[in-house]
Amino acid sequence: MKQYIGIDLGGTGIKGAVVREDGEILARQTCPTRPRRGPAAVAEDIGAMIRTLGRGREVAGVGLGCPGTVDDRAGTVVYACNIGWVNYDVRRTLEDTGFSVRLVNDANAAALAEAAVGAAKGTRSAVVVTLGTGIGGGVVLDGHLLTGFTGAASELGHMCIVADGESCACGRRGCWETYASATALIRRTEAAMAAHPDSALHRIAREKGGVDGRTAFAGQEAGDPAATRVVAEYIRYLGVGIANLVNIFFPEVIALGGGIANQGETLLRPLRAQVQSQEYGSAYTKKHPRIVTCTLGSDAGVIGAALFAAEKPE
Amino acid sequence: MKQYIGIDLGGTGIKGAVVREDGEILARQTCPTRPRRGPAAVAEDIGAMIRTLGRGREVAGVGLGCPGTVDDRAGTVVYACNIGWVNYDVRRTLEDTGFSVRLVNDANAAALAEAAVGAAKGTRSAVVVTLGTGIGGGVVLDGHLLTGFTGAASELGHMCIVADGESCACGRRGCWETYASATALIRRTEAAMAAHPDSALHRIAREKGGVDGRTAFAGQEAGDPAATRVVAEYIRYLGVGIANLVNIFFPEVIALGGGIANQGETLLRPLRAQVQSQEYGSAYTKKHPRIVTCTLGSDAGVIGAALFAAEKPE
Repeated sequence: MKQYIGIDLGGTGIKGAVVREDGEILARQTCPTRPRRGPAAVAEDIGAMIRTLGRGREVAGVGLGCPGTVDDRAGTVVYACNIGWVNYDVRRTLEDTGFSVRLVNDANAAALAEAAVGAAKGTRSAVVVTLGTGIGGGVVLDGHLLTGFTGAASELGHMCIVADGESCACGRRGCWETYASATALIRRTEAAMAAHPDSALHRIAREKGGVDGRTAFAGQEAGDPAATRVVAEYIRYLGVGIANLVNIFFPEVIALGGGIANQGETLLRPLRAQVQSQEYGSAYTKKHPRIVTCTLGSDAGVIGAALFAAEKPE
Repeated sequence: MKQYIGIDLGGTGIKGAVVREDGEILARQTCPTRPRRGPAAVAEDIGAMIRTLGRGREVAGVGLGCPGTVDDRAGTVVYACNIGWVNYDVRRTLEDTGFSVRLVNDANAAALAEAAVGAAKGTRSAVVVTLGTGIGGGVVLDGHLLTGFTGAASELGHMCIVADGESCACGRRGCWETYASATALIRRTEAAMAAHPDSALHRIAREKGGVDGRTAFAGQEAGDPAATRVVAEYIRYLGVGIANLVNIFFPEVIALGGGIANQGETLLRPLRAQVQSQEYGSAYTKKHPRIVTCTLGSDAGVIGAALFAAEKPE
């Protein structure tokens, strides 16, 4: 079986791995990103990591997963705000590793991994949605990642679901991620706490050292009415976006990742009901997309970057 | 060059054509649908049309474009409300034509035609949006129609852009087509007329024998403020949905069809400005999807159905 190197470049750390084409990780490396050093220093560390991982192995290709917008054709990171890269020609910098490094958006890479060897393995079409600080995601059709003609495709979180709604960091209003990311859930939880000083949410947050994406779910489990409303409202907006993706792609599988997806059936059961009621022509078919959670966890990024190296260039 | 037969089954008429693989129409047939006769009688007319068109020609395949949801794998029309077909096995009925007839949604067929030989010819990715009674559409990636695992994909009009918004016939609320179809524009025009008895819209409607998708644009051209507001509001909602499709697919081309698209640059110029301001990462790239009008007119349906016959089955 062929082996590839996958690199997952994050704001905090750089992860690298040698990945077999079936998704098995054979070796790992990590180092801190320290993006303030500038792109050249960071790219040098990535180059060193590629050389170390590749030593004594027959590596068929290298994929680099980056935050933000990448242009795989040009070999550049177009814009990655959280590491401060703008139109950086990372492919040229990495040329002396001996590989023509393929570039892929990090959320897209994770989606490719989940589709190929994770939650949606064996399916023909999958949409992967990562609920984190924002909403990232990727669409895999017939084994190929949907990247669009600029490599900027699948900005699923920046689909507007509330015309003229809340402002999003991207400049639009009403983006799905302003209503259904982990950040949105936390904001909603904090607003409920401010409005309900007697809510159990206060005790839960105190015990856990602060509010996070789990707080509202814990409150709901404790029977707190304010928490229950927060969760219901969150799932409702999450459902609107998922149902949009169903009506657009009608994939076999929708896989949810990110911390919130760890809620499992507590999240999925009401979500499935929401989505199915909004699926176009739902009453006339027995085929519905399966809504599941991702299975590869934080390895999805390196695995997907490695598997992307095997994709035919645009 | 190979030749295919394409059939476009509509609520009023059935159109058939022999189409060369480059999109050239070599022969045509039409007959009324009269759907009240029931699916068997309609299918019999389709069968007769296929035989007539195929006589003395070497036909490589037949494609049937139908309204509603089709299941090409099963060979059935799952649900087509405007002709009253529910789970009808049309492939079996047409077996004695000697062809295994391929099934495709009519808006998807039109999109395939525009992508292959029309407005988006020569591109790698195109989204086609038809602004009519509803909003239909289709997505063509690398020459292949996106159909999803049930054949129900690309219900682009049933993407929610206003959570909890106006009710849609599909059962959802806030669907794009309730805000940006021709029907929506007409409704908005009529509301403006009711609110502004002195608007030029009244005269224009009287002269043209009623309100249609052109009335508001004609009023805007005449300098009527109420009409100008109707058009601006319409384009704003149209732009929200188009920008969503850009952020999801980032296609090379977005092509608009249907009567409203005949407004040409009057529609397209403000629409492009709307969309570009909502494109993710728009400021960092010079590559923007081109927004254009469809070029094949009412032939798109038969051409696309014919071209679909050449697609690899799911």
